[in-house]
Order: sequence, then C-alpha cells, then structure tokens
Amino acid sequence: MDETRAVTQPPQFDLDFRDQLEALFRWRRDVRRFRTDPLDPDLIDDLIALAALAPSVGNSQPWRFVKVEDTHRRQAVRANFEECNHSALAQYQGERAQLYARLKLSGFDRAPVQLGVFADTHTQAGNGLGVRTMPEMLCYSVVGAVNALWLAARAHGIGVGWVSILDPVRVKTALDVPDDWTLIAYLCLGYPEEEHLDPELERSGWQRRLDAQQFVLRR
Amino acid sequence: MDETRAVTQPPQFDLDFRDQLEALFRWRRDVRRFRTDPLDPDLIDDLIALAALAPSVGNSQPWRFVKVEDTHRRQAVRANFEECNHSALAQYQGERAQLYARLKLSGFDRAPVQLGVFADTHTQAGNGLGVRTMPEMLCYSVVGAVNALWLAARAHGIGVGWVSILDPVRVKTALDVPDDWTLIAYLCLGYPEEEHLDPELERSGWQRRLDAQQFVLRR
Repeated sequence: MDETRAVTQPPQFDLDFRDQLEALFRWRRDVRRFRTDPLDPDLIDDLIALAALAPSVGNSQPWRFVKVEDTHRRQAVRANFEECNHSALAQYQGERAQLYARLKLSGFDRAPVQLGVFADTHTQAGNGLGVRTMPEMLCYSVVGAVNALWLAARAHGIGVGWVSILDPVRVKTALDVPDDWTLIAYLCLGYPEEEHLDPELERSGWQRRLDAQQFVLRR
Repeated sequence: MDETRAVTQPPQFDLDFRDQLEALFRWRRDVRRFRTDPLDPDLIDDLIALAALAPSVGNSQPWRFVKVEDTHRRQAVRANFEECNHSALAQYQGERAQLYARLKLSGFDRAPVQLGVFADTHTQAGNGLGVRTMPEMLCYSVVGAVNALWLAARAHGIGVGWVSILDPVRVKTALDVPDDWTLIAYLCLGYPEEEHLDPELERSGWQRRLDAQQFVLRR
C-alpha cells in the first residue's frame, strides 16, 4: 500500500481486469447485515489510504475520517438514526409505510467498524482552485473518497453500508469534530452475512433497477 | 456489459486484482491534455452503464447524462469556462497568480467527447428514502456514478477530466436540460497525451499530496 510498491510504468489494464472491475461494481452492495467478526485495524488504515487516492478539487484532499470506537458515541449516533428513521416512516402511507417499516436500513446492530467521513470545507489545501463557482466540489471530493473506500473494501470481501438517515449536525456533536467539518457519510463496515447481485431495496420491492440508457440525452 | 455476462456466484477477488485496483486508483488522474483520436461511441455507452452501477440513495438512480456534441453548445460551455477561469485568476496575487495562469485546467481544446452529468433532484425513484435529513444524498449519488465512470474509463486507457470552473446555471442553459436537474460534473474524455503517477497540480507546484493519516481521528 506504500508508494514504493507502486509501479512506475503506466499499467496496461487487460480484459480480465476490466471484467473483474465490472464484477466489483456489480457485487458492491450497500450492506446492512453484518457478521460481528472484527476487522484488522491495519486494513482499515489501508482502506483510508486508498480512499485518499480519490480525485479532489484543486488537489485539496478535504476528506477527514473519524473512527468511531466509543460505545457512548456509537449509541448517540444509533439513537439519532432510530429517531430519524421513525420520523421518516411517518411520511409514508398504507402499503408503502408497511414496506418501509420492514426494511433494514442500517448495520448499527452488528457492524464491528463505524467510520464518520467529513469534508473540511475551510481547508487551505488546494488554494481555492475549482471551487469559486462550484463550492460543493469540496463535498463531492469526499464522496469520491467514500466510493473508493467502498470498492477497495469489497475487493477485500468487506461490506460497507452508507447510513444517511441521520441528522448531520447532531452526528457532528456526537463525534465532537471541528465546526468547519461537514458530514458526508456515516459508514458501517464488516464482513457481510450474505452476498447479493441485486440491491436489497430492489429485492424488497422498494425500488427496481432502471435502464441507464433512458437517462442519456444528446445535445 | 449486459446482465447475462455477469457471474451469478459472488466473485472472490485475489491479491493480484487488489494490486491492479490500487494501480488503477494511483494512475487515474484528472486529464486535461488529450489526443484528438475519436472514442468508440459504444464504449461511451458501456461506461455510462457501468457508472449506473454506483450506489444511490434509496436506489434512486438520479444520474442523468448529456452527450454534448453540438459545436455551438460546446463553444458556449467553453466560453463560460474561459470567463470563470479569468475571474478565478483575479483572486490570486503575485507568484500564486503567475502559477495559476500557467495551469492548464481543462481539455476543451482537444477532448473528443464531452459529457454533462446532472442530478435529477426531483426524481420519484427511490420514494424519498434516505434524503429526508440529508437531501444532498441525491447529488452525492451522482458523484459516485462519475467516479465509477472515471475508473472504468481509465481501465480502458481513456482519460477523464472534471471541469468545475463553470457557472452551473449557465451550463444548464447552454445544454437545454430540465429545470429540475443540477449540474454535478462536466467531463472531458479522450485518450491522454501522457500518463502520470502524480497529479498535475502536484507536478506544477500548486498543491502537494498530503499524508492521509493526518486526517484520521479516533473518537
């Protein structure tokens, strides 16, 4: 994972690699059903190092990672999820409400590792390049890091679940992070109980996969 | 690229694949110096299909892709970039301004393919799941698709450059897309003139790579 291991000649990726990359994309999944087996702490650091290879606006590298280990902090985040999830359920009616109530939307119950991922929107790194007209690019850069971490984790057989049913301000308070940081993602990590090719929300009848071609315009 | 080719047993990724995935992350780059050779249009559709395997909140799949082919529309976007870049330069003083002026910050001059990537923030898909407390998740889902497309492109030897020095509202107007859409990324694609392990902004002295471990807290 260190620089000395990196090849110095541009890699040529072949069809076999591209097929495996596609399989990685197809089998990534948002995981909410975890085994409790611990993860190797060094591996988490390796995943964070890989995440930090994501593109960032102006090379600003605004990603900030919080390893959430304290039981009380974890309980505070989980309680916040339960409350937000309860409020979300109240938005739905009839069959849709029944379906929502049956969904398992977080892995807080068992995931051995929890990571809060934030954007430092006041970082000096990058010297403001590329954010004048699109300041949201700092947050988008951190999203890229989350996606890289997710793919790298799955390549190690580790599942990731991104929980967004949270009040981001209260998560910041629970984790005692600097005011300048913005919550981008709260992640549960662990070995998955089961592997699936189809998203859980498709399997449960919540939302099916759509054909991407219908989302393409020519101008 | 179609479903029938997908394996039906969960893939086991080995060390060789993980090493190649790391090489893909390391050599991805934001490319601004392109060769003018055309790209196979079918390959662009394949890349969009792979991008649509990215995670999305509530399985909402809010990504919308615009293939920008019309010369006048391309000129309008490029003129917008030139104007925004001129204004951005005026923010810097002294050596930093001289350095900024020397940077090549887009591939508009030669990239054979241009893609506008938008989020449909009013989509009904996903039924509102996961966006009540974090509505920005719809835009973040599209960022994930951009990152997947970027990695898949590089695995085919194709370079991608993300241009954010643009007025997103004027890009929407130039491309004549629905009001409900939000510009996430404007991408230039093509075969790169050269391959690099280090980001161009590092090589030019704008912003160096930072050690990711300094961005990790324990809580």
